[in-house]
Amino acid sequence: MGKRIFSGMRPTGRLHLGHLAGALTNWVKLQDDNECFYCIVDWHALMSDYADSSKIKSNCKEVFLDWLAAGLDPEKATIFIQSHVPYHTELHLALSMVTPLGWLERNPTYKDQILNIQNKDLSTYAFLGYPVLMAADILLYKGEAVPVGEDQTAHLELTREIARRFNNFYGDIFPEPEGLFTETPKVPGTDGRKMSKSYGNSIDIADEPEVIWEKLRTMMTDPARERRKDPGDPAKCPVWDLHKVFNKNAAEKESLAEGCRTAGIGCVECKKSLYGHVMTLLEPIQQRRAYYETHGDEVTDILREGAKVAKEVAAKTMSEVVEAIGFVER
Amino acid sequence: MGKRIFSGMRPTGRLHLGHLAGALTNWVKLQDDNECFYCIVDWHALMSDYADSSKIKSNCKEVFLDWLAAGLDPEKATIFIQSHVPYHTELHLALSMVTPLGWLERNPTYKDQILNIQNKDLSTYAFLGYPVLMAADILLYKGEAVPVGEDQTAHLELTREIARRFNNFYGDIFPEPEGLFTETPKVPGTDGRKMSKSYGNSIDIADEPEVIWEKLRTMMTDPARERRKDPGDPAKCPVWDLHKVFNKNAAEKESLAEGCRTAGIGCVECKKSLYGHVMTLLEPIQQRRAYYETHGDEVTDILREGAKVAKEVAAKTMSEVVEAIGFVER
Ligand code: SF4
Ligand code: SF4
Repeated sequence: MGKRIFSGMRPTGRLHLGHLAGALTNWVKLQDDNECFYCIVDWHALMSDYADSSKIKSNCKEVFLDWLAAGLDPEKATIFIQSHVPYHTELHLALSMVTPLGWLERNPTYKDQILNIQNKDLSTYAFLGYPVLMAADILLYKGEAVPVGEDQTAHLELTREIARRFNNFYGDIFPEPEGLFTETPKVPGTDGRKMSKSYGNSIDIADEPEVIWEKLRTMMTDPARERRKDPGDPAKCPVWDLHKVFNKNAAEKESLAEGCRTAGIGCVECKKSLYGHVMTLLEPIQQRRAYYETHGDEVTDILREGAKVAKEVAAKTMSEVVEAIGFVER
Repeated sequence: MGKRIFSGMRPTGRLHLGHLAGALTNWVKLQDDNECFYCIVDWHALMSDYADSSKIKSNCKEVFLDWLAAGLDPEKATIFIQSHVPYHTELHLALSMVTPLGWLERNPTYKDQILNIQNKDLSTYAFLGYPVLMAADILLYKGEAVPVGEDQTAHLELTREIARRFNNFYGDIFPEPEGLFTETPKVPGTDGRKMSKSYGNSIDIADEPEVIWEKLRTMMTDPARERRKDPGDPAKCPVWDLHKVFNKNAAEKESLAEGCRTAGIGCVECKKSLYGHVMTLLEPIQQRRAYYETHGDEVTDILREGAKVAKEVAAKTMSEVVEAIGFVER
């Protein structure tokens, strides 16, 4: 049944259209023909939020609801929370035995993050090792493929190197996971920058329809269209980037673009059309979310069952690892 | 019942008289009035022996036999192997979240070891974090006291600092363990240097009596006593250091010392006396060892039972930790 696929997501709270178009839509497709492990990586969240971990629990729950809402299907994929499977920490320690410090210190993402995230002290032992934990996440399930964006290739390469080094010492335990490169569409937020919770410009999957309309209505457009009668250029308009992702009606898009260029339509009309397409996509998603929001026990059961299946696979890997290392039988 | 005590030992293979006099005799005493957790720390062994882990299993087994032989009593203490309790790795990761890199990089023992152990590449991620794993070992059992020699006070201080920092962030989970300082007697090996497996100068607990006699017979003495008729000085003789530890007969010692100083006795006579005292101590120990060597199933049961008890205590600590951090309930 296809490939063993692992993918993790940090629990940052409610997900937005960027997550939906960038990752979740792809994950939902992958689960049909592959053996997928989708994991909310709460230990990774703790790495940056150790000084205030109070939001991790609710963030995990929001992400999990959004996942189920978006169509991740516990009947098809194994969906779980990282800390529910203690073997992640065990493989993390095992892999850290063979990981040269230099590989981590030279990791360019590490240096970037230390510089960029200035309001948090990331100079901890755990944070230096986050690529080792990422490697453990993937290798614990013998992941053969990992959906990655272009900015994550360095991490995947490090995972491959750690797997190779471990295999060199202890035998052929881990496959070297490959990147599943999927085109990530451009999804700008309401201010035209990349949609991101931290920019406060996101349209969330769980936003009420009125809220979504209000965000779209006030969304930045081509700055040249100051007035209704000014012609615009869709290529310079973030609203248009969203049309490209969420509007599947080519003829309508053609006519809207023409209307923009000739000032034949106003931006509100263009945005109303976009709103319609976004809501067509979100309606069944929000219905599923509403269902799970009111069926907490079912959600808990899904989490438990996911952890159970993940633990079985992880335990098998770890007993191979422990035997290969040569510890005393448990 | 006294204190919660944790002590770990790296599995280096058969133990010698230095371990017996330095640690085990003390541990055997402590188990009567305290709740003791004695742990063979095989993950720590892997940190330095990852490139050739082939001896870890047999080394663990030898150490365990020596422990049982020396009188560590599974009815009184919890005796187990670190890797059999996966929670060590989980707490290791949790503590590493709050451990500043600088604390580890500045750890003087770390720098020493990197410089001293030249035939092994210790510049791995795991090795930098070994004080974090040590802290996890102790704190997992909420150890209140740790038997330490003088050279280990820096590590214990680091454990206390990590416990304090964790408690500051997440509430009062861990006691700050105190050092149980016990005088470590001087136990030289056959060449007069500190007894150590790596010097090849050790007298092992499991050595055959003839082997022990042969090692004592050829052991270095006061270099001034070249011939039988030369007077000697016990203060300059490593054999005498062993008398001080293993010969409990004050009157006999007095007379031997006098005989040495006046050349009234020969070194062979002095060593025969020492041999007698060492064997009086070792005979019941070697009998117990012989019993367990031929009762492997019993040893396995003791290991399993030890791991079971340790896991119960560790699981309790970890559920407090995970709740304090605020992860989603498992
Ligand atoms: S009409 Fe549409 S594409 Fe043109 S500027 Fe307005 S919102 Fe953007
Ligand atoms: S008589 Fe004993 S103490 Fe004196 S030098 Fe010989 S071995 Fe050492």
